[in-house]
Amino acid sequence: MAKAKIAVNGYGTIGKRVADAVRAQDDMEVVGVSKTKPNYEASIAHQMGYDIYAPAENLGAFEKAGIPAAGTIEEMLEKAELVVDCTPGGIGEKNKPMYEKAGIKAIWQGGESHPIAGFSFNAASNYEGALGRQFVRIVSCNTTALCRVISPIDRELGVKKVRVVLARRAADPNDVKKGPINAIVPDPIRLPSHHGPDVRSVLPHIDITSAALKIPTTLMHLHTVNMETNTDCTVADIKRILGSQSRILFVGQGISSTAEIIEYARDIGRPRYDIWENCIWEESITVHEKELYFFLAVHQESITIPENVDAIRAMMEFENDGAKSIEKTNKAIGL
Amino acid sequence: MAKAKIAVNGYGTIGKRVADAVRAQDDMEVVGVSKTKPNYEASIAHQMGYDIYAPAENLGAFEKAGIPAAGTIEEMLEKAELVVDCTPGGIGEKNKPMYEKAGIKAIWQGGESHPIAGFSFNAASNYEGALGRQFVRIVSCNTTALCRVISPIDRELGVKKVRVVLARRAADPNDVKKGPINAIVPDPIRLPSHHGPDVRSVLPHIDITSAALKIPTTLMHLHTVNMETNTDCTVADIKRILGSQSRILFVGQGISSTAEIIEYARDIGRPRYDIWENCIWEESITVHEKELYFFLAVHQESITIPENVDAIRAMMEFENDGAKSIEKTNKAIGL
Repeated sequence: MAKAKIAVNGYGTIGKRVADAVRAQDDMEVVGVSKTKPNYEASIAHQMGYDIYAPAENLGAFEKAGIPAAGTIEEMLEKAELVVDCTPGGIGEKNKPMYEKAGIKAIWQGGESHPIAGFSFNAASNYEGALGRQFVRIVSCNTTALCRVISPIDRELGVKKVRVVLARRAADPNDVKKGPINAIVPDPIRLPSHHGPDVRSVLPHIDITSAALKIPTTLMHLHTVNMETNTDCTVADIKRILGSQSRILFVGQGISSTAEIIEYARDIGRPRYDIWENCIWEESITVHEKELYFFLAVHQESITIPENVDAIRAMMEFENDGAKSIEKTNKAIGL
Repeated sequence: MAKAKIAVNGYGTIGKRVADAVRAQDDMEVVGVSKTKPNYEASIAHQMGYDIYAPAENLGAFEKAGIPAAGTIEEMLEKAELVVDCTPGGIGEKNKPMYEKAGIKAIWQGGESHPIAGFSFNAASNYEGALGRQFVRIVSCNTTALCRVISPIDRELGVKKVRVVLARRAADPNDVKKGPINAIVPDPIRLPSHHGPDVRSVLPHIDITSAALKIPTTLMHLHTVNMETNTDCTVADIKRILGSQSRILFVGQGISSTAEIIEYARDIGRPRYDIWENCIWEESITVHEKELYFFLAVHQESITIPENVDAIRAMMEFENDGAKSIEKTNKAIGL
């Protein structure tokens, strides 16, 4: 079987991780990555052996910086069967005509809204719906995390409603331009936040509302999840259901914060200390008067990466069974 | 009428504010404040004209530092009719025998547990229950804030249940020893946190659970409140009910974070930029499918201060009507 030819448009926080994850698979390959500026990330992409493409007007700057560019973004798309758009939120939408013109499949990230693709994807929730599609949107890190916990519980117990408060990292570790550095920012002030409704782009029947805060930290988001199930359940039931999911990791053993989760990832040798799994404090799982509670930490930079790989596989119809794709993706990246 | 003679045991974050608030009233006076070490706060207390008392073994250190001490803590208690214990959580309990021996009334703060006094106080919720009592506990900043919103809504609409997530400032602004500086700490990991149950020390019939996080900020706590009422209500109802409370302040006008609330307090000339009121983003008040949501910010250093003054007045039986005491306290401190 020929490998799927994948272009990664936008080699930033998500793009560089998608490129590495695609490269790790045996049924797909990276034909090129795009970068607008010849900065340190472009230099590393070159060192890693990726063919770099840039907007036509910026090719001169790459040459001047001593980072070879293989051509324009349009030329990259010509080589590809599928493009993963990892440009900043809102830009992806502007790129859609370019992908349509190139006649290739396209994946967007959660910064774009649902209608851009007409299908929002989470591997554990609706893999089969992506089979053969031309356009797919991978939901955001927070939505991905919520879908991963809601889907299996809903299948087994039925989810009556979900109420979640998201404490969001204000900026990524390398984003030195954002704040706050000493404040809590309700964001948005007007409730609910978009996260709950966005879960319904994948799981339309779930009653979910959300509220979100931006807080002065860079490492991970943290969700406080409150859920009612249709069927009575015990803590043991929830641990069994969530524990059976390969992309859910229980944390404990003295891990008391997001910082220690990151330390754990560094110690086990994860690339860029990425944590592709939902991290749930096992001890926090509580059933109290028919309501379920737990704390869930989300590594915003990496949690959607395996979902991108699975989406490619579904869209290319290389694998019709979501569970098998998840297993294959996980194994290749070392999850 | 003779002024009530008040001792403030522990002149730290809460104690210095209680002293100032008591001094501002016309029916009570500060006979002394205690300090263990002759540091900058003790020096300011002296400049402000408070008589400073210290543990007997530390009187020499005060003399050496050039800060006059008026005597021992036991001597301070002899001059007082009522002591407000503002020592760190857990120390107050050890002081109880000393207060009993002195035969005076005593108030503790929320760092002590309910049984220390057998009565937990919130002016808007149970003022009358404190009338004539010897011992009273003022509930913590977070519990005070929750009681202030739950009580009036419960009286008018009936509160079916409350689910709240507290994003807690990790340290006070002057507390340079604590963290985290870049992490989210679920605290406690095992749910629920004590805050919900603590509300029931004031309002025993309320169904409330809480979860809490420590986050890297010093300015204020932030509560995401989710409440179900027994009677259907509109946003306008809630605005009217909460807006009628003198210790609830609606924020808006471009205030997007706790930092801007503090800036507001600085601009209107509040002492130490204290905000004695619950701060609720008016725009966040949402009624969604029979559930009420809002964001509430809590200035941890000062929100319980007026409650201390009201508790003194109730325990001394200077005023039998809680609403009148609240009004009198507010007016004197400039709220």
